[in-house]
Amino acid sequence: MIECFETTRKTSGGTDIIDISSDVVAFVRKCGINEGFVVVFIPGSTAAVTTIEYESGAVEDLKGAIERMAPRDISYAHDARWGDGNGYSHVRAAMLGPSLCVPIIGGDLILGTWQQIVLCDFDNRPRTRRILIQASGN
Amino acid sequence: MIECFETTRKTSGGTDIIDISSDVVAFVRKCGINEGFVVVFIPGSTAAVTTIEYESGAVEDLKGAIERMAPRDISYAHDARWGDGNGYSHVRAAMLGPSLCVPIIGGDLILGTWQQIVLCDFDNRPRTRRILIQASGN
Amino acid sequence: MIECFETTRKTSGGTDIIDISSDVVAFVRKCGINEGFVVVFIPGSTAAVTTIEYESGAVEDLKGAIERMAPRDISYAHDARWGDGNGYSHVRAAMLGPSLCVPIIGGDLILGTWQQIVLCDFDNRPRTRRILIQASGN
Repeated sequence: MIECFETTRKTSGGTDIIDISSDVVAFVRKCGINEGFVVVFIPGSTAAVTTIEYESGAVEDLKGAIERMAPRDISYAHDARWGDGNGYSHVRAAMLGPSLCVPIIGGDLILGTWQQIVLCDFDNRPRTRRILIQASGN
Repeated sequence: MIECFETTRKTSGGTDIIDISSDVVAFVRKCGINEGFVVVFIPGSTAAVTTIEYESGAVEDLKGAIERMAPRDISYAHDARWGDGNGYSHVRAAMLGPSLCVPIIGGDLILGTWQQIVLCDFDNRPRTRRILIQASGN
Repeated sequence: MIECFETTRKTSGGTDIIDISSDVVAFVRKCGINEGFVVVFIPGSTAAVTTIEYESGAVEDLKGAIERMAPRDISYAHDARWGDGNGYSHVRAAMLGPSLCVPIIGGDLILGTWQQIVLCDFDNRPRTRRILIQASGN
């Protein structure tokens, strides 16, 4: 059995890291799959998905590491060609990746106690970001 | 239903980032799966898969960030032990990761408008790189 | 068909990178799935999973790159708030990610010749780390 759910989140354009665990948990509970896993996917080339302990300190620290990895204030060939100003956003998204898999066991999503699923929107302008959640199993 | 497709790409040995979206899209269209997802996997320890807007600027910017993350010209313990000269390749591949999942909805692969699937070959010599594409669903 | 296997590994609290390929291979061989894929997932917000050539040089090089990406000795907002001292662990785990998919073809896991699946435990104290392995297919 495979079940798909799509939702959206409005983002601010300032490297938003948003906890979407409750959407995923709610969908898993109602989709009727007992054993399986969920695929979370973010369509788009300036956003990503991962997990983190969702508290403001760890989120700020993650933003710091991402800023060091692909700083906003260096020059980007993408910006030189297209003038979007979001070259750093593309690099950040490609490095983190757009997909994640999480197991479902006994009808529940299996995450660590302090582990949340986060949408990372790196774009430099507000977006309405699509989130695709697919549950597969029995 | 699960369907598997394997293809190969020749790479140059110079941190090739190659758009493989058309292979994945073509396989999805002919595999007959309407609702599901595709797993893309690169066997090997010096290559990875992710998504990016595939235009030369963003690709160059991604290469820049990868070079900063695991520079080619620092010393690597792998090279000291084995003399391969591709220690940086192994580190880059491990950091980006070899697998990706992308949803299939209504028989089509769901990617953002400017989002392409890319093989990243970090090895320091030309390779014929295997690409595994598995579609699962109904 | 979907089959799940859970195992654990004791870790030391010093950025352990542990080869878990033999667990995954053994499970795949006995689960009876011929064509499909395996999802490997690490519950918890201070660990990750990826693949690498598991030899001491490449593992040391990976640790070096991770240390540059999220150094242990800079200040972290997570530590300032919670006093755990493992802010760097959370950042490292979020950047690498907790999930991986690997194909099964002809009843065997498809990895490159020198490619092993590794648990990366970034926490600053010994843990008994859960590893979830789910095989899906026919």
